[in-house]
Amino acid sequence: RLIETLDHLHPADIADLLEQIDVSQRERLIELWGKDLNPEVLSELEEGARDLVLATLTPDQLSSAVQELETDDVVYLVEDMDEPQQEILLDALDDADRVAVEQSLTYDEYSAGRMMQREMVTAPEHWTVGDIIDFMRASDDLPEQFYDIIIVDPALKPVGEVRLGKVMAHPRTVKLSTLMEDEFRTIPVNQSQEDVAYAFNQYHMIQAPVVDEHGRLVGTITIDDAMDVLEDEAEEDMRLLAGVGDEEISDSTWAIAKRRFPWLLVNLLTAVIASIVISLFADTLEAVVALAILMPIVASMGGNAATQTLTVAVRAIATRDLTASNMMRVVRRELVAGTLNGVAFAIIIAIIGMVWFGIPMLGVVLAIAMVGNLAVAGLAGILIPIALDKAGADPALASGTFVTTVTDVVGFMLFLGLASALLL
Amino acid sequence: RLIETLDHLHPADIADLLEQIDVSQRERLIELWGKDLNPEVLSELEEGARDLVLATLTPDQLSSAVQELETDDVVYLVEDMDEPQQEILLDALDDADRVAVEQSLTYDEYSAGRMMQREMVTAPEHWTVGDIIDFMRASDDLPEQFYDIIIVDPALKPVGEVRLGKVMAHPRTVKLSTLMEDEFRTIPVNQSQEDVAYAFNQYHMIQAPVVDEHGRLVGTITIDDAMDVLEDEAEEDMRLLAGVGDEEISDSTWAIAKRRFPWLLVNLLTAVIASIVISLFADTLEAVVALAILMPIVASMGGNAATQTLTVAVRAIATRDLTASNMMRVVRRELVAGTLNGVAFAIIIAIIGMVWFGIPMLGVVLAIAMVGNLAVAGLAGILIPIALDKAGADPALASGTFVTTVTDVVGFMLFLGLASALLL
Ligand SMILES: [Mg+2]
Ligand SMILES: [Mg+2]
Ligand SMILES: [Mg+2]
Ligand SMILES: [Mg+2]
Ligand SMILES: [Mg+2]
Ligand SMILES: [Mg+2]
Ligand SMILES: [Mg+2]
Ligand SMILES: [Mg+2]
Ligand SMILES: [Mg+2]
Ligand SMILES: [Mg+2]
Ligand SMILES: [Mg+2]
Ligand SMILES: [Mg+2]
Ligand SMILES: [Mg+2]
Repeated sequence: RLIETLDHLHPADIADLLEQIDVSQRERLIELWGKDLNPEVLSELEEGARDLVLATLTPDQLSSAVQELETDDVVYLVEDMDEPQQEILLDALDDADRVAVEQSLTYDEYSAGRMMQREMVTAPEHWTVGDIIDFMRASDDLPEQFYDIIIVDPALKPVGEVRLGKVMAHPRTVKLSTLMEDEFRTIPVNQSQEDVAYAFNQYHMIQAPVVDEHGRLVGTITIDDAMDVLEDEAEEDMRLLAGVGDEEISDSTWAIAKRRFPWLLVNLLTAVIASIVISLFADTLEAVVALAILMPIVASMGGNAATQTLTVAVRAIATRDLTASNMMRVVRRELVAGTLNGVAFAIIIAIIGMVWFGIPMLGVVLAIAMVGNLAVAGLAGILIPIALDKAGADPALASGTFVTTVTDVVGFMLFLGLASALLL
Repeated sequence: RLIETLDHLHPADIADLLEQIDVSQRERLIELWGKDLNPEVLSELEEGARDLVLATLTPDQLSSAVQELETDDVVYLVEDMDEPQQEILLDALDDADRVAVEQSLTYDEYSAGRMMQREMVTAPEHWTVGDIIDFMRASDDLPEQFYDIIIVDPALKPVGEVRLGKVMAHPRTVKLSTLMEDEFRTIPVNQSQEDVAYAFNQYHMIQAPVVDEHGRLVGTITIDDAMDVLEDEAEEDMRLLAGVGDEEISDSTWAIAKRRFPWLLVNLLTAVIASIVISLFADTLEAVVALAILMPIVASMGGNAATQTLTVAVRAIATRDLTASNMMRVVRRELVAGTLNGVAFAIIIAIIGMVWFGIPMLGVVLAIAMVGNLAVAGLAGILIPIALDKAGADPALASGTFVTTVTDVVGFMLFLGLASALLL
C-alpha cells in the first residue's frame, strides 16, 4: 500500500523523501520496492543519497533502470562509480547510447559535456516542414523532451534551430531553413556548467546544441537541467560565503562535523591573529577596562559592513553585473558608502561611549575607529572577491574569512592604538 | 555606429550595459537611440534602471514599445507606474491585451498572476492532430514562445497538456486527448512566485497553465520566467543572510549607504548587548588581562559555527529539504555536530591558552566555553530559522543577527563567568 501511494508521487518527490528518511528506513523501502523502482527517481537524488541507493540495488535492477533513462541522466548515475560497476551498467545500454555516455564521461565534471544528452532531433538544411513531420511520424524513438529542430550542414555542424511552434505554423512546402531563429547560440562542449546556466537564463534559451572543438554537433542541453545548475551554483556561493562545504541534508552527523571542521579551523587561526593584535595593547587594556568592553563593537560593525559588501560583490560577479566597465565606479561607491555609514555610526557610538563611561576622549577614539573600520570594510569587501576572481579562484571561496580578518585586525588596531595614544 | 554595434547584441546584454554605465551616459545613449530602442530591452532591465529608462522615453516611444511585448513583460513595465502614466500605456494595447494586463495587475506582486502571459495555444478536447495543425497554420498571431497545447473543457478549465513534439509525431487523425502527458499540473493564480519557481525546477516543467479560484484558465507561465524567479529568490536569501536589502548594481552611493544603514543599526544594538554582558565582568577583566585578549576567539568561533548551520538551514527550508519528517533528526544532528566540533576546538584552544599565558586553569575555562558555545551555535542556527518559518516570516530575514547575538551573549557569559568562578 505504501508503494502504491508512492507510485503516485513525482520521481523528484520520491527522491526527496528518500533523502529525508533515515538510512535504515531508506534501505527497507528500496527492498520493498524491488524492481518496480522508477529509474527517474535515481536521477533526481542528490549525489550522497544516490550513491547509497545505488549500492542497495542489484546489477539487474540497475541495468533495467538505465535503459529507460536519457543519456544525461545515465551519465549522472555512472560518473562516480568504480570501473567494474560502470562496466556492468554501460553493457546494459545499446551501442549508440553507450558511445554517447562514454564520450560524455571524457569531458570535465561540471562542463557542458556532462550536462548534455544525445537524444535530439536534427534535420538537413534542405528539408521542408513536410519532411520533418513525416520523419517524426515515422520515428519510433523520439526524445522524451525536445523543443527545437537543430538544422545541421553535411559536416554535422549546427547552422540554426527551428522552434516546434514555428514548424507547426507553416505549410508542408516551406523550407525549414527559412524558419530558423535569428538568434542562434551553440554551447562549446568544454564550457563550465556555470556559464551554460548563465547563458540559458540571460538569453531565455530553452534548448541549445552543444558542439565540439570543430563545431560539430555532439549533444543538446535543455533548460530544465540548466535551471538545476543555476540553483546549485547560487547555493554553492551561499555556502562558500558561510564557510560550508558541499554537504547534503541526508548526511550523517559525523560527516557534517568533519566537513565543517576545516572552515572553523581557518576561522580559529584568523581569530588568533586578532587576539595577537589585541595582546599588543595589553597595558592599555589593563589601564582602561572600558576598552575591553567596547572593543567587540568596532570589530562587529566592521565585520558586518564587510559581509554586506562582500555578498553584493560575489553576487554581482556571478551574475556578470560587475564588469571592467563599472568596476572602478563600484569600488569607489563601496568605499564612499562605507565611509558614509562609518560617519553615521561614529556619531552614535561616540555618544554611547561618552554617556556610558563618562570619558569624552573615549567617544573620540570610538568615532575615529568606526569611520576607519567601515571604510576599510567597504574596500576589503569589494577588492578581495575581485582579486580572487582575477586570480582565477572562486570569488566566494574563503573570502568571508579574509575580509573579516582584515576588519578585525584593522578594527582592533585602530581602536586600541588610538586609545593608547589619546587616553593614556 | 555605436547604435549599429548595439543592435547586434541580445536585448538582455544591452540591458546589462545600460545598468552598468553612468546615469549621464545612459541618458545620452537612450536619446541617441530614439524610437529604434528594442522594447525587449525594457523588460530585461532591473527595476531601478527600468524606472530611470522609462522616465527618459516619450509617451509615443513607450506606446509603440508595449505593443510588441508579451503581456507578462507589459505587466512588468507598468506595475510600478502612476495611474496616469499607466493609463497612457494601456491605451496603446489592443482590447484583449489590455484586459489581460489589467487582470494581472489585480493579483499580488510576486504571485503567479503577475508572472503569467495570456499568449498561449489552447484546444478543445475533441480536436485531433490535424485540427490543431490547421488551426496553427491559419493563425497569424501565435505566441512567440509556447511548448505545449493546453487542452480545455467547455468551461475553459484545463484538463491536460500535449507537448508539441508529441503532436508532430502522430498522424492527423489522432485525438489530442490521447496524447496528453500523464503528469499534469496547474498553477493557482495566487501562488507565490517562489512556489511557482520551485515547482518548475522540481517537476521539470517547461510551461504550465495558470488557473483562477474556479479552476478556469487565465494564463500561462513559461520556464524562462520561472528560472529568473528562482535566481532572484536564491539571491534574496543570500542578501538577507548578509543583512543587505534589495539593492542593484546601478544604485547610487547614497542609495546603498541608506539601504544598508538599518541593518547595521540592528547589528550595533546587538553588539551593545554583547558589550553589556562583558561589562558585568569588568572586575574579572581588570584582574586578568589575558581574558580580554582571548575573549573574541570564543565569540568568533560561535558566530562562525552558527552561520554555517544557519545557512544550511535557510537553504534546506527554501528547497523544501527540511520538512516535518526530518526536522527532529536535523536539529539533533546540528546540536551533536556542533558539540563534536566544540570538543575538537576545546582541545586546540585549551593548549593555545595554556601555552600562551602559562595559566592551566585558563585552558580549562576556554575549553568549556568553546564546547558550550559551539553546541549553542548549532542549536540556535537551526532553531531560529525554523521558528521564523513557522511564524510565517522569512527564515533568512535577520536570522543572522538573532543567531550571532545568541552566540555572542552565550560565549562572553560562559567564558567570563567561568573565568570569574575558576580564576579569581
Ligand atoms: Mg531533490
Ligand atoms: Mg531527464
Ligand atoms: Mg532573465
Ligand atoms: Mg535532462
Ligand atoms: Mg561552481
Ligand atoms: Mg560559482
Ligand atoms: Mg546580468
Ligand atoms: Mg540583466
Ligand atoms: Mg517575453
Ligand atoms: Mg531538480
Ligand atoms: Mg515571459
Ligand atoms: Mg521572496
Ligand atoms: Mg525566500
